[in-house]
Amino acid sequence: MSDAIAIEKLQIPFDAYKLDRLMDQAGLDVLIVTSRHNVQYLLGGYRFFFFDVMEAIGLSRYMPVFVYRKGRPAEAIYVGNRMEGFEQELGRFWTPTVRTAAWGTVDAIDIAVDYIRKLGASIRRIGIETSFLPSDAKDALARSLGGVEFREAHLVLERLRAIKSPAELDMVREASERVVASMLATFAAARPGMTKQEIVDRLRQEEQARDLVFEYCLIAAGSSHNRAPSNQVLNEGDIISLDSGGNYKSYIGDLSRMGILGEPDAELVSLLREVEDIQQEARRAVVPGTPGAAIMAAGQGRVAASPHRKVIEFTAHGIGLVSHEAPRLTDTGPVPYPPYDADRPLEPGMVISIETALLHPQRGYVKLEDTVIVTPDGWDAPGDGGRGWNVSPPGRGAP
Amino acid sequence: MSDAIAIEKLQIPFDAYKLDRLMDQAGLDVLIVTSRHNVQYLLGGYRFFFFDVMEAIGLSRYMPVFVYRKGRPAEAIYVGNRMEGFEQELGRFWTPTVRTAAWGTVDAIDIAVDYIRKLGASIRRIGIETSFLPSDAKDALARSLGGVEFREAHLVLERLRAIKSPAELDMVREASERVVASMLATFAAARPGMTKQEIVDRLRQEEQARDLVFEYCLIAAGSSHNRAPSNQVLNEGDIISLDSGGNYKSYIGDLSRMGILGEPDAELVSLLREVEDIQQEARRAVVPGTPGAAIMAAGQGRVAASPHRKVIEFTAHGIGLVSHEAPRLTDTGPVPYPPYDADRPLEPGMVISIETALLHPQRGYVKLEDTVIVTPDGWDAPGDGGRGWNVSPPGRGAP
Repeated sequence: MSDAIAIEKLQIPFDAYKLDRLMDQAGLDVLIVTSRHNVQYLLGGYRFFFFDVMEAIGLSRYMPVFVYRKGRPAEAIYVGNRMEGFEQELGRFWTPTVRTAAWGTVDAIDIAVDYIRKLGASIRRIGIETSFLPSDAKDALARSLGGVEFREAHLVLERLRAIKSPAELDMVREASERVVASMLATFAAARPGMTKQEIVDRLRQEEQARDLVFEYCLIAAGSSHNRAPSNQVLNEGDIISLDSGGNYKSYIGDLSRMGILGEPDAELVSLLREVEDIQQEARRAVVPGTPGAAIMAAGQGRVAASPHRKVIEFTAHGIGLVSHEAPRLTDTGPVPYPPYDADRPLEPGMVISIETALLHPQRGYVKLEDTVIVTPDGWDAPGDGGRGWNVSPPGRGAP
Repeated sequence: MSDAIAIEKLQIPFDAYKLDRLMDQAGLDVLIVTSRHNVQYLLGGYRFFFFDVMEAIGLSRYMPVFVYRKGRPAEAIYVGNRMEGFEQELGRFWTPTVRTAAWGTVDAIDIAVDYIRKLGASIRRIGIETSFLPSDAKDALARSLGGVEFREAHLVLERLRAIKSPAELDMVREASERVVASMLATFAAARPGMTKQEIVDRLRQEEQARDLVFEYCLIAAGSSHNRAPSNQVLNEGDIISLDSGGNYKSYIGDLSRMGILGEPDAELVSLLREVEDIQQEARRAVVPGTPGAAIMAAGQGRVAASPHRKVIEFTAHGIGLVSHEAPRLTDTGPVPYPPYDADRPLEPGMVISIETALLHPQRGYVKLEDTVIVTPDGWDAPGDGGRGWNVSPPGRGAP
């Protein structure tokens, strides 16, 4: 009774019933969440500004801890850094219990353990993020909670995040559109004699000027397939592949566009059109209610029909707070993992990144990558401009 | 013999003899380094651009692995992400062996384990970074290398980094000077009606415009001691404390300066002078060959003589790739840890951050924080401008 009242007063920023269901399926009584992205999600977008970039401090590192007991959101606790007392004063946390008293990993987990012990003896299985729980904290946890079974909670958490809210989709749209706008500005400023590193520096400035956090840029130029920023000098006629992630309030826009220092010849036009055809074919398979595997099948089918099929890399993956997340559609592509979600229906609010790269041995690296949001009617593709050859300087060859 | 020849050909970017000595003292046969900052140091400044900001990928996270066997730099190996093959092509790694084949934590550590096994059976003790080795990787390590003892390598690694090279000191200088220049530009632009968040946004832009990576800004304004960015509106006459970290090529500049929207009255002038006196007293104790504890003693002695001693927080700590690192001089201050280095002599090339905050109950938060480099003759303080009240708008009250 007291719990029911407390729950109504809580402003839980995520779908707690869905989380309970996922935990139930995974056999978890309690979740101990320690990754910055999942803690952010569970705290409704809150992320402690002080450790947005760096992580090491003192003899250890920052580690936020969010503890959730299945079916008992009123018992959720957040354990933060001592400086997060400033944020607590400002009322940033929805959890009924907040402890801002930690500096490192072990003192943070010890506070969480003390709290979990008070929850009672019925806790047998705890979900943890094994890649995001440092070994010293895990050892302390296992020592303090003998008899408890620890299980990986990765899939529970990423499935909780798989369907984005309208507010999250707005951030995905902003991120995608701003990344592409930054790329077009960068292509417009590209000139022979600049290095790949200088192009990337320019892109970073363009993204930052649009209030994005610049994450990275993979860049290939000329006939090379090497995508690291470097002192490689751009020449007249070179093609440029930009593949950049920038985040807006932590939601990642990850897109690829092509530029050229001059006019593309007929072969280059044809190569990019080939890539574009594969992208469009895959996109047409984005239909709510259809299994996500259809996206892969459509794209791979079109790749198989291409004369360049042996040098084409095609993949699709969910994206959001993490650059490869649910829905997981394939075990091919740059990050291999089991296609856990391939047979599950696509749902409105899912966000899919679709990418096709053609590694032409003579002409270079030709790639498009797009963000596709599943909508009730089909799909929406934010940042969908600049998909052809972006010519530098702009207006070159215009009539 | 073959090893000796190989070592001469290697371009080891750190003091390998010092590392061997530190490992010997700690009883370590092998180091497995997995924190981004220590891997960067051991690779001579290299940091993989793709995971500069984000860490999660696929079902796991990025984890670079550097393995070093005591006395055998020719056997060092770097295990990177598959995309770091681009960097390998560009010749960025000094280690004779490089494997760019991993995506997550466990596959990366498995590659390292395979390599360590080939090094032979004489390896009994391995140093790890327990706060920076995820639990899944640690579990895989312990399973694969049964019989090996794992020890914390934190102190070995931070003592290796404690004395900065001239090139590192240049980066510390740049970071410190650029952070202060950014603060002065921000104070000059501050006006009543702006929020604390808007001031921080401006500072971020100023730091980014100076090619810094903005890390954070703690900000207090008016009579409040709350240092989180927020919608608190600045009023005429408010004082502003900026405490920001920005890094230049990963070396952190962490300084604090004071501004005011108007003219400081006599009491404010006196309060900041009190803080400044403590800072200068502590700085005078920076003498190479003298134990670092002298800095704390000097500062604390001056605090004890202050009428405001009950509301003054004074501390000093090493700084570099990590915001609190060796030399560790005290167990007081914002990050408590044992004063491991208090009795050791200061050496040229060490970098100390000295900070004094006066939390005045009516007038607000008054703080200075400075970067002090130990030199052969004494000290050098980069970014030493703007230590008084920085008046907004500038020139106000000028004759």
